[in-house]
Amino acid sequence: MTWQTAQLMPTADRIDLGIGQPDPALLPADLFEQSCVDASVLAYGTEAGDERFRYALAHWLNQRQARPTSPEHLMITTGSSNALDMICTRFSQPGDTVLVEDPTYFIARKQLADHGLTAVAVPMDQGGVDILELAALIEQHKPAFFYTIPTFHNPTGITQSAERRAQLVSLARDTGCPVVADEVYQYLHYAEPPPDSLASLDERAPVLSIGSFAKLLAPGLRLGWIQGSSEILVPLTGSALLASGGGLAPVTSSLVRPLLEDGRFDQHLVRLTEVYRRRLATLVAGLTDHLGERIRFTVPTGGYFIWANWLNGADTEAMLPQAHQLGTGFQPGGKFSASPGQASAMRLCFAFYDEAQLTEACVRLSKL
Amino acid sequence: MTWQTAQLMPTADRIDLGIGQPDPALLPADLFEQSCVDASVLAYGTEAGDERFRYALAHWLNQRQARPTSPEHLMITTGSSNALDMICTRFSQPGDTVLVEDPTYFIARKQLADHGLTAVAVPMDQGGVDILELAALIEQHKPAFFYTIPTFHNPTGITQSAERRAQLVSLARDTGCPVVADEVYQYLHYAEPPPDSLASLDERAPVLSIGSFAKLLAPGLRLGWIQGSSEILVPLTGSALLASGGGLAPVTSSLVRPLLEDGRFDQHLVRLTEVYRRRLATLVAGLTDHLGERIRFTVPTGGYFIWANWLNGADTEAMLPQAHQLGTGFQPGGKFSASPGQASAMRLCFAFYDEAQLTEACVRLSKL
Repeated sequence: MTWQTAQLMPTADRIDLGIGQPDPALLPADLFEQSCVDASVLAYGTEAGDERFRYALAHWLNQRQARPTSPEHLMITTGSSNALDMICTRFSQPGDTVLVEDPTYFIARKQLADHGLTAVAVPMDQGGVDILELAALIEQHKPAFFYTIPTFHNPTGITQSAERRAQLVSLARDTGCPVVADEVYQYLHYAEPPPDSLASLDERAPVLSIGSFAKLLAPGLRLGWIQGSSEILVPLTGSALLASGGGLAPVTSSLVRPLLEDGRFDQHLVRLTEVYRRRLATLVAGLTDHLGERIRFTVPTGGYFIWANWLNGADTEAMLPQAHQLGTGFQPGGKFSASPGQASAMRLCFAFYDEAQLTEACVRLSKL
Repeated sequence: MTWQTAQLMPTADRIDLGIGQPDPALLPADLFEQSCVDASVLAYGTEAGDERFRYALAHWLNQRQARPTSPEHLMITTGSSNALDMICTRFSQPGDTVLVEDPTYFIARKQLADHGLTAVAVPMDQGGVDILELAALIEQHKPAFFYTIPTFHNPTGITQSAERRAQLVSLARDTGCPVVADEVYQYLHYAEPPPDSLASLDERAPVLSIGSFAKLLAPGLRLGWIQGSSEILVPLTGSALLASGGGLAPVTSSLVRPLLEDGRFDQHLVRLTEVYRRRLATLVAGLTDHLGERIRFTVPTGGYFIWANWLNGADTEAMLPQAHQLGTGFQPGGKFSASPGQASAMRLCFAFYDEAQLTEACVRLSKL
């Protein structure tokens, strides 16, 4: 009998660059082999999450952002999808409009739809979301919130510039429109660090930054956080869900806290980013060597993805069956956007496969 | 520095029978001291939860219900509050009506309100919910679902009879109105086992039974399950939340699975129910000895609570400040119901304090 234990069962022999998950070989089993559950976390936990863990997390974040945060500005979640789910429940009503980037993470679009929300897309350029367009759409739609992926954007890899971030936070403050920043790739950079987390820029602005250990440590931990001003966290920490069940991740946060405190998490992150830096370079070289002038892409400096456009304008959704026949795959652009212009793009993930497989995938893609 | 790690910081010297939580001294730290995280659960988990765990759980449940269930009829949650939250998101729209028992668990009422739902109360008698009234209210309101606590009801301690359960499941099947059964006390019985879990009675009926390890093992695990027919689980397992983040509790389910498989969980449950059986008897004796004819209550055969009515019709909400002054406390009836008749009741929990404290609490209550 074979047990279904993981979400993904990759097709044998296929090198599917559509898979946006960490390489199982890079999951740090050694860090958890001798982990023991702290007996003090077996009771109902405090609503915002174990304060010792939030303290350790604040300390870790404060080494990575100019304006310090504190445990009061953090709440613990069971991952970024859980965070977005709670935010939808507490900050919107079905029928509301939510602004999203064009393109945006395809499953986030589905999560918004599950909550009965209508997504309206805001155009992006290489510096991130178009602020003037965003301001006009906030005025027009009075949205429940704006969902953005400011750093190593999924799918485009774009990082919002520091200037754009300042404008965005200022706009949130002026209009009162909350900004929900999905920052799960914020600390996965292979060159200079990106500009600081949006929630850290101005505590008077209604900004919620969603962080996660899924990509930094292991998705199965189901452990993440929301950083925000105390005030904007109140509808979340004051929810009946937490009043009844207590904080969300006492056990897993107790497993991760020692790793944050003694530097093992940082050591792991150094090793992980070295591997991903090489994989990114390998995928860039493979695409350049094997697809050359047929596609165009910008090289990201972090995250998981390259967003490549076919210059012939082909619909990548229609190309997918052939890609599968050739033993490869990708996420077609149409999943991330309703705009026809995005349909000729494909999202390629360099995190799941090793360098030899990434090169082989490019060879296979070149036969399309 | 004192860290806030637990949800509850009991007031010194007060014996507050309003606390509906397990006694920290009974949390089985020894069962988790040598627990190791299974490295195979570090990837994104399968949406319904690790199949090995669901198999072990189905095996455990099948020793306790006449009609067998299977892993396909179970999905894993991060506790019962999380289960109700997901059910609200996927089975209702704000503005919908949800039927609840009168009285019902006060934080469930708040959770429904957080989702914009209007609760309409259905009367109960000693056999559980009034089926004729329920049928009339389903006809009248076309509710999103009926939320019930069929076993060792919170707050009343009432257990729905087998006959009533059959009628309820039949009504769900005939009307299509889903029944959401909060069964977190189902396996905490101190006499004969209660009738079987509602979801196990008829797989063609739209019934979701919510189970949890919070009361059976430890709330901090944030681990529970939903049992239902495969069909009714589809909106839950197919949610974008799970498509994005994978299954909900890979790590904690991997810690609990060995305990289910090797019998340590059952051994713990035997010890736990022995302690609670004695505590229930102690509270019954204390109330009888010290409050005598001033209150009326029915002795439950499981769960956490005694629901006691003051025969003078006093409003227990108004009595609470004096109770606190006397060094005791309870949950006033008005929290559980909008019906004036329930305001003279109080919910007393016998799970949190030891026998000496329970007796002392009765002495203090007698001075009210």
